[in-house]
Amino acid sequence: MGCPVGIGPEIINKFFLETVLARPKSMSRPVVVVGNAEVLARVADELGMRVKIQSWLPGNEVEPDVISVFDSGTPLGKLVWGQPSLDTARAMIAYIEDAVDLIGQGMLAAMVTCPISKISLQQAGSPFPGHTEMLASLTSTHHYRMMMAGSRLRVILVTIHEPLNRVSSLLNRKEIQDCIAMTVRSLQRDFGIPSPRVAVAGLNPHCGENGMFGDEEDVCITPAVNAYSGPGEISGPWPPDTVFHRAAAGEHDAVIAMYHDQGLIPFKLLHFKDGVNVTLGLPIVRTSVDHGTAYDIAGQGVADPASLEAAVRMATDICRHRAGKLQ
Amino acid sequence: MGCPVGIGPEIINKFFLETVLARPKSMSRPVVVVGNAEVLARVADELGMRVKIQSWLPGNEVEPDVISVFDSGTPLGKLVWGQPSLDTARAMIAYIEDAVDLIGQGMLAAMVTCPISKISLQQAGSPFPGHTEMLASLTSTHHYRMMMAGSRLRVILVTIHEPLNRVSSLLNRKEIQDCIAMTVRSLQRDFGIPSPRVAVAGLNPHCGENGMFGDEEDVCITPAVNAYSGPGEISGPWPPDTVFHRAAAGEHDAVIAMYHDQGLIPFKLLHFKDGVNVTLGLPIVRTSVDHGTAYDIAGQGVADPASLEAAVRMATDICRHRAGKLQ
Repeated sequence: MGCPVGIGPEIINKFFLETVLARPKSMSRPVVVVGNAEVLARVADELGMRVKIQSWLPGNEVEPDVISVFDSGTPLGKLVWGQPSLDTARAMIAYIEDAVDLIGQGMLAAMVTCPISKISLQQAGSPFPGHTEMLASLTSTHHYRMMMAGSRLRVILVTIHEPLNRVSSLLNRKEIQDCIAMTVRSLQRDFGIPSPRVAVAGLNPHCGENGMFGDEEDVCITPAVNAYSGPGEISGPWPPDTVFHRAAAGEHDAVIAMYHDQGLIPFKLLHFKDGVNVTLGLPIVRTSVDHGTAYDIAGQGVADPASLEAAVRMATDICRHRAGKLQ
Repeated sequence: MGCPVGIGPEIINKFFLETVLARPKSMSRPVVVVGNAEVLARVADELGMRVKIQSWLPGNEVEPDVISVFDSGTPLGKLVWGQPSLDTARAMIAYIEDAVDLIGQGMLAAMVTCPISKISLQQAGSPFPGHTEMLASLTSTHHYRMMMAGSRLRVILVTIHEPLNRVSSLLNRKEIQDCIAMTVRSLQRDFGIPSPRVAVAGLNPHCGENGMFGDEEDVCITPAVNAYSGPGEISGPWPPDTVFHRAAAGEHDAVIAMYHDQGLIPFKLLHFKDGVNVTLGLPIVRTSVDHGTAYDIAGQGVADPASLEAAVRMATDICRHRAGKLQ
């Protein structure tokens, strides 16, 4: 459910109303909320949404015409939209831990996360900057990557939240090779692409134009591409200003971007509303909305559930692809 | 005409056939080629294009059913598509010089450039890395900027062909202020927007998120935005990964990008075929196609004239906007 006073509860209700309850057959698997039933009921009440909310326990059937909620049972105190408290921070962490537990017990197949906030995590004394790092720790995962995925573009980031002027010094052949291998594996296993075509972007304008402006392409990107010997077709480094256009046109199944905005500028241009964040490398299936808690509009009824719907759909697709494999 | 053995002559013929000759009224002003009539005739012959090519001299009428060519008279020697020589390099430089002269004499109103190559410029001993620098020198212009313009997005670059790891050290408040002022002036004068809304992009992911990853926003971008006191609405720094989406959705008339790929990745995603390069700050009106000589496909008949058509149309629009002003 994410942060209880962000837009998570609202987009969950909207998603159920517009998709799960309206067209139950459009979902290939039942959906359960791990969070707090009272918050969902309050949002529904305040925004005039007619939904039936029902408690769900592991092993129960998921009824087709209700929102099934596994209640984490953490007290929330007085709730004010957009104003996280120590209670809401602790609750939102409990939802994540409970979801991981339920998956570990085999009671749920995949996890879709609604937004949490860094401020709340810090408030609650959590050592993690975000969802992904917490999930990695809960599942004892050391190597993981973020993929942004949509119908037109999939982007994997080599470096993420770093100052632009540090990116060059953080790039190395091994990191890029790891990204390539993890991307190929995910495209095969999670997206059902037997021989993935992966484009690796350069770092500098025109890939440095033969060293005239930058040589990271020669020093680490080209060697990483050349060193790869697994399945799929790995190509690059490609000039950054055209590779995303080519990928969106269907030439590549995914693009490996060297830094945050290199990948997210084109991704958000094509998938502003329906982008999905997929974590590669975790033992569990995990997708996420690609927006934040949006505290400024929480409780107002204007939040868009498109990214949540896309994230749930992608999680079920990944389960389907994995189930179709022998591994 | 650009490099005689690139795709310039082919896209000129195609542009005339598809636009100027087919729909003469669709062009608000007559169009003249500064280049070489024989090359155009040869392309037409080889690719089976039925065009009439006629010599044009300053003061002549421009006939509606022919391609009018001002012939620079430079010898070309034996031509091989895709293989520039000293002769073709010198000729392509002469076309540029002649066009500037004709504009200076008041015989032509604006200049649209087809692609030239850096290799050719170097071959001919030219000290300039490209068209723009040559035009700046020919018109004694010291401050100029490159704008990439299309129907959905206009982008101005603060730094251009620089290694990514040098961008941070090249940014300063004055450069950004100059960009803002030149952009506002061009949007008013060239694009007919009385009160331009200009967005300034940040440099780091999420604009550095309060200094957590980078502080160039605080050090030079915000001060540059705050120091501006001219007409229009200047805003920023905006998170790079969403500002281009917002601009394309109509919230901003132009975005000032801190580095090449920050601006060109979104621009080429939206305007891969019909992007136009406009040089701000020159005393003459100058637009350019936004692609290169494409030596690999020269002479094959597959080159797309869309960017040339857009560039000619934008040059005539700029002339119209300027004529409507008192300045």
